[in-house]
Amino acid sequence: MKELVGRPGSGSGLVLRLGQVSCAAASIGIMVSANGFATFTAFCYLIASMGLQVLWSFGLACLDVYALRRKRDLQNPILVSLFVVGDWVTATLSLAAASSSAGIVILYARDMDFCTLQFHLPCSKFQISVALAFLTWALIALSSHVMFWILLNSV
Amino acid sequence: MKELVGRPGSGSGLVLRLGQVSCAAASIGIMVSANGFATFTAFCYLIASMGLQVLWSFGLACLDVYALRRKRDLQNPILVSLFVVGDWVTATLSLAAASSSAGIVILYARDMDFCTLQFHLPCSKFQISVALAFLTWALIALSSHVMFWILLNSV
Repeated sequence: MKELVGRPGSGSGLVLRLGQVSCAAASIGIMVSANGFATFTAFCYLIASMGLQVLWSFGLACLDVYALRRKRDLQNPILVSLFVVGDWVTATLSLAAASSSAGIVILYARDMDFCTLQFHLPCSKFQISVALAFLTWALIALSSHVMFWILLNSV
Repeated sequence: MKELVGRPGSGSGLVLRLGQVSCAAASIGIMVSANGFATFTAFCYLIASMGLQVLWSFGLACLDVYALRRKRDLQNPILVSLFVVGDWVTATLSLAAASSSAGIVILYARDMDFCTLQFHLPCSKFQISVALAFLTWALIALSSHVMFWILLNSV
């Protein structure tokens, strides 16, 4: 179980964290570049949630770099419990943010057909940003499950 | 850990499951009674997700009744693993459905102010239904955590 892909303090763990940081940062960047995003509460919440995700994942990526350089083992139960709780909280917030934004995007693009009727709406940017938010959630859910398995096998 | 509140096959577990069933059923009932809900994809998804939640929680409530009447112990690792996975999947779907619907409700009630401008919209019904969906998610998340603790302590 020590060799689980994506475990903390490993190369694959670092890649997973950097993937989360880059997807969340890209989601924020694309949303911020879309005109009029600030009129939608859900899109502002998406930015806040992805911002928190960037901070959390970047912090853990730095910890992974430290562990890799100093060859430290990060797999003690207390530290892994902290990672599980943090991953669970950020995953929940990310899923809620991505889903609420997706609700609006589907309403505009499919239900109301506003995206073809109102050309000034940057619908494609909204869609890409939401898709990246879901990708971020999938990556953080993966991390969360890896931590859960490590915790299960370390108690 | 055998005495954990909300564990499967206990009275508190049964109450928790019945709470999930009633909240999810009430959410469906109120949403279906709101005029024009079918034009919103997110609200249809909310009904589908709450329907799945009713089925899952009702099934486990029946199992709890069986265990209570026959005095059977449901806390073996394989059964608890199944409960953890099922609870996790339904909790994720419920949160996604509640959040996507909440995104639309906030858009209509706050961002666009449609609820005060367009009197024919049953905004209060949408809001109550979404609130009940979040309550259902909170209850299923509670069940999911109880199962997680039981699993942690049974391996």
